[in-house]
Amino acid sequence: MPDIAYVNGAYIPIAEARVSILDRGFLFADGVYEVAAVIDGRLIDNEAHLSRLARSLRELRIENSPSMTHIAEVEAELVARNGLSEGLVYLQITRGAASDRDFGFPQDTAPTLVAFTQRKNIIASIAADTGVNVITVPDLRWARRDIKSVALLAQVLAKQAALEAGCQEAWMVDRDSFVTEGSSSTAFILTKTDVLVTRANSAEILPGCTRKVVQTLAAREGLMVEERSFSVDEAYDAKEAFLTSASNLILPVISIDGRAIGSGKPGEKSGLLRTLYIEWATNAAQSS
Amino acid sequence: MPDIAYVNGAYIPIAEARVSILDRGFLFADGVYEVAAVIDGRLIDNEAHLSRLARSLRELRIENSPSMTHIAEVEAELVARNGLSEGLVYLQITRGAASDRDFGFPQDTAPTLVAFTQRKNIIASIAADTGVNVITVPDLRWARRDIKSVALLAQVLAKQAALEAGCQEAWMVDRDSFVTEGSSSTAFILTKTDVLVTRANSAEILPGCTRKVVQTLAAREGLMVEERSFSVDEAYDAKEAFLTSASNLILPVISIDGRAIGSGKPGEKSGLLRTLYIEWATNAAQSS
Repeated sequence: MPDIAYVNGAYIPIAEARVSILDRGFLFADGVYEVAAVIDGRLIDNEAHLSRLARSLRELRIENSPSMTHIAEVEAELVARNGLSEGLVYLQITRGAASDRDFGFPQDTAPTLVAFTQRKNIIASIAADTGVNVITVPDLRWARRDIKSVALLAQVLAKQAALEAGCQEAWMVDRDSFVTEGSSSTAFILTKTDVLVTRANSAEILPGCTRKVVQTLAAREGLMVEERSFSVDEAYDAKEAFLTSASNLILPVISIDGRAIGSGKPGEKSGLLRTLYIEWATNAAQSS
Repeated sequence: MPDIAYVNGAYIPIAEARVSILDRGFLFADGVYEVAAVIDGRLIDNEAHLSRLARSLRELRIENSPSMTHIAEVEAELVARNGLSEGLVYLQITRGAASDRDFGFPQDTAPTLVAFTQRKNIIASIAADTGVNVITVPDLRWARRDIKSVALLAQVLAKQAALEAGCQEAWMVDRDSFVTEGSSSTAFILTKTDVLVTRANSAEILPGCTRKVVQTLAAREGLMVEERSFSVDEAYDAKEAFLTSASNLILPVISIDGRAIGSGKPGEKSGLLRTLYIEWATNAAQSS
């Protein structure tokens, strides 16, 4: 059975799923996206993702999008049609395909909605057992990183730099040597005094959905949770470090720029928070 | 006759011209583009455009692109098939459609080449007669603006802000209040002492093809040509201002943020340079 994708109302094999070359997502990166995890055939934390999607659309003033209720139905339908038990649902909305190429917003153009699924082991993850290695790179992105837009070229280059350095993720660093976030994840450190630190939300980072749940779970566990910028040097010196994302949940970071973090093995609190997140996600999935 | 576009080897009506939803141009803005003017059925300054395209591809390490010779043939074929006398040829190359979505560069994926034409009056331009109004906006773009990538979302928002302010272009301004460039054009001012000023090329602006020719023509005419940053205040106070782009050649700027530039009418040197550029382009087109 071929994987089925969704394009503007139609469910079709992904190999045949196409958009116009005049689509503004293709010509201008004029679109937004979300990725949600699927566990046991159910979407995890999807309300948070759809709420962030709605915010991204508002910020870019992409109007007449299908409703969030309809989008959730499309996502559920894709999970069902693809028999997806564990993996991801990707969805993208662009400002649509105008009749001609012009920078300004087109009139009377309906947004494009595209979605597809990806199979992926999310709970049983080798990276969660071994931990991941991170490099730091300058953050080259634009000034509105709070919008989850498809203008992802800087993130592509950051991730590729990580892969070529034998790492799994790149942490992007601002002009003042503070970590902003990963190329496709949120960056956390646990200080030697057991304070869990991640950057405060602003236009400089994406407000992570998984980040937020992890902060709540950590606080519930009695950990001090702080939102503030941390430098690369502070990260090198951390007791633990980890990253969060919808597609990886929580992954321990065992080295940054070749320097071992803590013992150089996945940290205890990172592992605990991953376990708690999976528990939370599984319960949430079952009750949804 | 429908407009004919080109997609990966095929000439097809533009209404049927599509790319995969997995194309990295659509998912990641992982692609580059060029726009060249057509006058009398001939491409203007196309060697400069293709050389900049080749540089953009190198900077992003998009490999196995069709050769520049082949791309020039595709452009000429599109001009012929569309019977295009005056207008634009748009072309875009992306890192291609991988079998799955992943930030890192895919292996063994061929780049996507897309091209189409647009009809447009370039020489007989109302905007050239009346001049255009410009607003200034913060430059929100990423740090590698020298690459002509399709990650154009900041430019889209800048242009839309201009249109909503009743203007035709937005000049983007850096943190130090210096103008970088227009959302889809290069920014020039002529000082009260008749010095033609435009920002020096760097990672902060796109190296304009039309910009370069205009600088040469201005110098040939005996004008002092300076490459340096200029502030918004200096622009307000300029004797003349104009913008350059492949699609508009040279357009006089008659106001910035509602302040009249010079007499508030198209400047003399702006008009002269436009005439010289058209002369140059027409000769170049005829001799090519």
